Amino acid sequence: MKRIEQHASFGGRQEVWAHTSSTLGCDMRLGVYLPEAALRGVKCPVLYWLSGLTCTEQNFITKAGAQAHAARHGVIVVAPDTSPRGEAVANDDAYDLGQGAGFYVNATQAPWATHYRMQDYVAVELPTLIEQHFAASDSRGIFGHSMGGHGALVTALRHPGRYRSVSAFSPIVAPSQVPWGQKALTAYLGADPQAWRAWDAAELVATARQEKLHLLVDQGDADEFLAQLCPERLQAACEAAGHPLTLRMQPGYDHSYYFIATFLGDHFDHHAKYL
Amino acid sequence: MKRIEQHASFGGRQEVWAHTSSTLGCDMRLGVYLPEAALRGVKCPVLYWLSGLTCTEQNFITKAGAQAHAARHGVIVVAPDTSPRGEAVANDDAYDLGQGAGFYVNATQAPWATHYRMQDYVAVELPTLIEQHFAASDSRGIFGHSMGGHGALVTALRHPGRYRSVSAFSPIVAPSQVPWGQKALTAYLGADPQAWRAWDAAELVATARQEKLHLLVDQGDADEFLAQLCPERLQAACEAAGHPLTLRMQPGYDHSYYFIATFLGDHFDHHAKYL
Repeated sequence: MKRIEQHASFGGRQEVWAHTSSTLGCDMRLGVYLPEAALRGVKCPVLYWLSGLTCTEQNFITKAGAQAHAARHGVIVVAPDTSPRGEAVANDDAYDLGQGAGFYVNATQAPWATHYRMQDYVAVELPTLIEQHFAASDSRGIFGHSMGGHGALVTALRHPGRYRSVSAFSPIVAPSQVPWGQKALTAYLGADPQAWRAWDAAELVATARQEKLHLLVDQGDADEFLAQLCPERLQAACEAAGHPLTLRMQPGYDHSYYFIATFLGDHFDHHAKYL
Repeated sequence: MKRIEQHASFGGRQEVWAHTSSTLGCDMRLGVYLPEAALRGVKCPVLYWLSGLTCTEQNFITKAGAQAHAARHGVIVVAPDTSPRGEAVANDDAYDLGQGAGFYVNATQAPWATHYRMQDYVAVELPTLIEQHFAASDSRGIFGHSMGGHGALVTALRHPGRYRSVSAFSPIVAPSQVPWGQKALTAYLGADPQAWRAWDAAELVATARQEKLHLLVDQGDADEFLAQLCPERLQAACEAAGHPLTLRMQPGYDHSYYFIATFLGDHFDHHAKYL
């Protein structure tokens, strides 16, 4: 772990770290916000943020205004990159496949299977790393935006007991049913839709047998990608399964970080109830 | 005036507008945040933000978290670009001269004098435009960062009565005395340092005869550009002239937007006392 940026921020510190990921087989960067208590060595809960298509570790830490809320709640915030990176890593010219578009799955298909194991990276390697290197407790929450909202919901649903709280902004809730998801899941997991079900939040909600984490989802009704997001599919699945969901349709809001920044404080308040 | 971006944000709207500036003789962009009251037609006070070297109208509106504070106080926030722009506009390969580095002066020297009239643009054309096109009162404040902190202080000091409040983050307070300022002022105004005095906040404070606006200045003590900023020169000039100044040295903070975001709420509170 090598620190490559550090900036004082709201009494704590926004840092960027680089490390070689054993899961992904490449060098990765991540944003880490440490509130003042964590800098003093007091163990703090950790919120993992998963970003959307085309993002790196920078988008959330520079645009969302998260540090004010993290400082207020005394929470560490970890923002990884959205895919494996580097010249040796498979890629595609499209913005919605390959680097910048890992979809938080473990790929099984060539050429992606070698490096694209973002689910294991986010859910296993990263918490271990963070809890070893920082004053981090094992009290974890996870949230994200768009492809990262899908990532947050799926990661929490696939790992009962690992996260105490989960929320999402404009998530892709049913990737099996929409163009973004079908393209990525076909490439990473193969053409059989049966293999996609374990990576689809609406499917996972329907079959969740263990603890049922309360899902908080914010969705702008002026979102230019609404047809790829389909919040009504998550709502229907949650109603059918009796899974607790708060879905807030926000009038006039779009898919941008202006939307995220507006409601991010509510999400921190939600996570703080459980962490 | 043509609107080229709009995003719902904290109950109001972050917009980006393009227009042809008669002062600068080129097309310009500016960020305009309209709080909910302004969208309903209620006239709101206006805060003008001036950005630093290399910035466009985008940096402040995407990175500072200003919209939360503007919404809380019911203030319009206008963030212009930092220089005239376009292929027909003189430029320089350096980051600290030409496009992106207008220094908020009215240039007198070739080739800059044709377009580089940022002082008249910010202090005259822009308020007229804003007060015509939006629900804006004539209650104005001005603030900025680095080169834009210099711009805010100088613009307020040069126009007594036009602004009710002023503040700055890490401003270049004595451009006549430091490399950034000497390079730009020589290019824009000529080699005679006498011509620079009317564009130097520390000089202007010393000769201010009319109303003395309270100056609020935040400066990080880990700022990598401290030798170009020299807050002690402003402090000495204010003490000598009896000009009211609150200079806060913020321990550990650098020159970045992480610093600005941390203390921006205090600056809005300061301006709100006067607007």
